[in-house]
Amino acid sequence: MSEQNSAQSAVTVLGLGPMGRALAGAFLGAGLRTTVWNRTPGKDQELVRRGAVSAPSVVEAVAASPLTVVCVVNYDASDAILRSDAVTDALKGRTVVNLTADTPGRARDTADWAAGHGVRYLDGAIMTPTPTIGTPAGVFIHSGPEEVYQEHRPVLEALGGTHTHLGAEIGRAAAYDIALLDIFWTAMAGYAHALAVARAEGITARELAPFAKGIGDILPAIFEQTAEELDAGTYPGDGNPITSAVSSMSHIVHTSEAHGIDAGVMRAAEGLARRAVGLGHGADGFTRIAEILGRR
Amino acid sequence: MSEQNSAQSAVTVLGLGPMGRALAGAFLGAGLRTTVWNRTPGKDQELVRRGAVSAPSVVEAVAASPLTVVCVVNYDASDAILRSDAVTDALKGRTVVNLTADTPGRARDTADWAAGHGVRYLDGAIMTPTPTIGTPAGVFIHSGPEEVYQEHRPVLEALGGTHTHLGAEIGRAAAYDIALLDIFWTAMAGYAHALAVARAEGITARELAPFAKGIGDILPAIFEQTAEELDAGTYPGDGNPITSAVSSMSHIVHTSEAHGIDAGVMRAAEGLARRAVGLGHGADGFTRIAEILGRR
Repeated sequence: MSEQNSAQSAVTVLGLGPMGRALAGAFLGAGLRTTVWNRTPGKDQELVRRGAVSAPSVVEAVAASPLTVVCVVNYDASDAILRSDAVTDALKGRTVVNLTADTPGRARDTADWAAGHGVRYLDGAIMTPTPTIGTPAGVFIHSGPEEVYQEHRPVLEALGGTHTHLGAEIGRAAAYDIALLDIFWTAMAGYAHALAVARAEGITARELAPFAKGIGDILPAIFEQTAEELDAGTYPGDGNPITSAVSSMSHIVHTSEAHGIDAGVMRAAEGLARRAVGLGHGADGFTRIAEILGRR
Repeated sequence: MSEQNSAQSAVTVLGLGPMGRALAGAFLGAGLRTTVWNRTPGKDQELVRRGAVSAPSVVEAVAASPLTVVCVVNYDASDAILRSDAVTDALKGRTVVNLTADTPGRARDTADWAAGHGVRYLDGAIMTPTPTIGTPAGVFIHSGPEEVYQEHRPVLEALGGTHTHLGAEIGRAAAYDIALLDIFWTAMAGYAHALAVARAEGITARELAPFAKGIGDILPAIFEQTAEELDAGTYPGDGNPITSAVSSMSHIVHTSEAHGIDAGVMRAAEGLARRAVGLGHGADGFTRIAEILGRR
């Protein structure tokens, strides 16, 4: 019980970019003894004013708490911080939750390192922007050994929001993160392109926005329906076959390029759709593209 | 008044694909005298059972009503139907509302043809799927001469949903359509790719769906905020700069290609983001991409 209390009462945060600062701030707000460290100094001043302990070195930072949360730019950066002999020694028997975004492969590689050095390790990802940290709107996903997750869950939940343990396979949180960021950034690239084409046609972003919001509003339901189709392996195209998507896509490319606007993203998407038609799936719904992309 | 009554009581629909049949069905449901025609026969049987008049030729179809609604695969198809001497003669003094999707340039070209032959012409686009036709969920946009729109508005509103006249410039409806379909199909390409990568990582579509829905849920608000940034010409990157998007995008490309999955759409998007960084805008928010795409 006293060990659990200590696990619940102290945490270290490595990396004080905007997200790291938000994490440390949320831990402080929840009353945890919070130790912080950042590679370049000066980022911790506001946190120290609020009661954080500024550690002079990574070794001292990780030694201060049973749990260290890492949030840096990528796993190259977190490897550079964690994989020195001194830090690895200091981490022995302690837990690292790495909320740094990278690939599932890097998480698996880190799990090997952790297992080889007696470090307990969870990988995680934060699916919502910085202002959601410490609020009910935050969405966190985690993967790695169940018992390690359960032990540190009270501290992680001090960050607010919803926390989901996706399973013991360490790459799972990063895989979800990659897939979800794929949706997000592709959609944002489409929106940026649409705004550029609209502007070239004399339509302001503000004029387009209510209709763009209308498109955004219908996506969640289509995402759910599409998911069922892929799992079922059936791709009904009724009313909206891939051939119709190809027609729209070619109009978009034509209009964009007629204004001298790069249409590379849509050209790539159109290529996938035309390939689906060429493979005999023109009458199917667009979800067929996911199946074709995944073929080996 | 009697002319207006006649305009309100009879309509012709050319093109009986799924959308054309839905349009004709909605007109019938609203009690309008509805004449239908399709290039290949047999598509009108259900409509005729419900009271539609099946015209044996395009000339007879357009002569039956003051207003003809066209909904075919593209403007090549609608030109082939409308631009014969006999049909053009029959259309003189009558109105065509072309709900066929194509580029703003094709609408402008058709406006020239219409003006040269005494045909009154509106272009329109349907922003919602077939099942929304005849229901409050339908979204229609129109452009062309205000007085022509106002005259036929009662008949068009028999299709249900919301109708917006975007202005006299005939290309405007198609330009909105292009921009909105750009958002939609790019997002769908991103989702299809995300599903393929997730599946390669052992994640079913059903497992990913609730989180994908979460991404979909945050897009409308981001679309609105992004629009304001572009119109204002300021691109605050606080918390989510383009450099961070580049980092995510490269993780996505790497994970995708490590599974042998084509990442062409994301590679193109990453190229735009890297170009923005190269132009000195790495600290800006992603909306900067729209400004760069539109540069001449």
